[in-house]
Amino acid sequence: MSATPPRGRLFLVPTPLDHGCDVQAPLGDVLPQGTLVQAAAITHWISENARSARAFLKRVDALQPLAQPIQAQQITELPREVHKKGDHQPSGTWDARPLLAPALQGHDMGLVSEAGMPAVADPGSSVVRAAHALGVEVVPLVGPVSLLLALAASGLNGQDFAFTGYLSQDSAERVRQIHDLGRTVQKTGQTRILIETPYRNQALLAALVAGLEPSLRLAVATHLTLPPARTRCASVAEWRRNAMTVDNKVPAVFLVGRG
Amino acid sequence: MSATPPRGRLFLVPTPLDHGCDVQAPLGDVLPQGTLVQAAAITHWISENARSARAFLKRVDALQPLAQPIQAQQITELPREVHKKGDHQPSGTWDARPLLAPALQGHDMGLVSEAGMPAVADPGSSVVRAAHALGVEVVPLVGPVSLLLALAASGLNGQDFAFTGYLSQDSAERVRQIHDLGRTVQKTGQTRILIETPYRNQALLAALVAGLEPSLRLAVATHLTLPPARTRCASVAEWRRNAMTVDNKVPAVFLVGRG
Repeated sequence: MSATPPRGRLFLVPTPLDHGCDVQAPLGDVLPQGTLVQAAAITHWISENARSARAFLKRVDALQPLAQPIQAQQITELPREVHKKGDHQPSGTWDARPLLAPALQGHDMGLVSEAGMPAVADPGSSVVRAAHALGVEVVPLVGPVSLLLALAASGLNGQDFAFTGYLSQDSAERVRQIHDLGRTVQKTGQTRILIETPYRNQALLAALVAGLEPSLRLAVATHLTLPPARTRCASVAEWRRNAMTVDNKVPAVFLVGRG
Repeated sequence: MSATPPRGRLFLVPTPLDHGCDVQAPLGDVLPQGTLVQAAAITHWISENARSARAFLKRVDALQPLAQPIQAQQITELPREVHKKGDHQPSGTWDARPLLAPALQGHDMGLVSEAGMPAVADPGSSVVRAAHALGVEVVPLVGPVSLLLALAASGLNGQDFAFTGYLSQDSAERVRQIHDLGRTVQKTGQTRILIETPYRNQALLAALVAGLEPSLRLAVATHLTLPPARTRCASVAEWRRNAMTVDNKVPAVFLVGRG
């Protein structure tokens, strides 16, 4: 008679926001000791990108020795189609349950994306859903979440907000989306949070400044958690008077609010 | 001839999520060293509640010695009307700029709420808006953000989500709100995040389980960052089959999603 091994847990492990940036945040500035200790103890990973996951583990190891050398760790990548399109698809199109086999055998597992919190504006929710389906406990660890850091730093309404991801890349459609978004914000007071692929940051900023009502407020947060972190929040009228550019190389968060 | 002193910055300092709970999170589990070092250096505070702010500083001091004894620190409370109703009011009703006088004199300042990130589902945005109006740099520090920890742990759609705070306390109105919310989630796939005053947690859960379509998914996250952290996510049909209670003493986050 053999007992069923106790299940491992799925830890959601946040990573620094400096992926692809010229400067790196000191890891201890952005991850609590508790997160570092837990990450160092995990030996089975599911990642957006295995190379980034190994680079992250190397940074963890410098502060908190890993339970196993990186080469000996099991790091499974999410399939490319999943992380290209985002993996929040209706059930059935992609089943992440097989990835969690180590957890069923008793190993604690870690889920990481390239930057920030997995499964929020980033791949990973399919894995979390699979964990709930299998009865694997899900434990989110504390770390940087760019959307919420930006929201807090904007001073815009933090009692009513929505994130809807990316606008259309078609410029006519984008103009229409910005118009609709501005009307909704004006009417409801809800803050809208947007992101863009970094090399299109400046184009998105220009489109927002041109397309929103002058009385609305627009915030742009760049270099979150990195020097030189900067959040500017002003009326669209003010943005028009004092044009500013936004770096096309670093992640930025854009926010539109009222009053 | 005297030069204008350089302005201080406004740091948004997150606090642990254990306010009012029986157990406390070890501070190092939830705040990075960078946040602790910065918080320990600040001597001028704006807080939701001065007593909680002092209790927080005492916990910081145990890990990272404060620049000044707590008794010597300047801690200003947000007016009670502001934090009762939330302080995201149209400009003009409450002007937080006078609170930032120390920053204009060159002192770095800290903004803290009772738990989590100030200005997100918590008072403080009026102070951040005032900082932008005065040209005081705003720097958000990393720490626990219950809404996003819960969203990640739910496995629900993290590419499209909205937080709208509290539902009505009037039960007929609440039934209507839950019906509307369910229809929106079903139609758009957007995840909706809700919170409630802890002693009404169980009543909100019961209303959601009774009022939502059986095919929608409902998640409840409790004890985030604390033992015994627990996030359950299942279809409403499953919640009906396996009724669960939710602790009426600890903060909980409720999420409704599709598929």
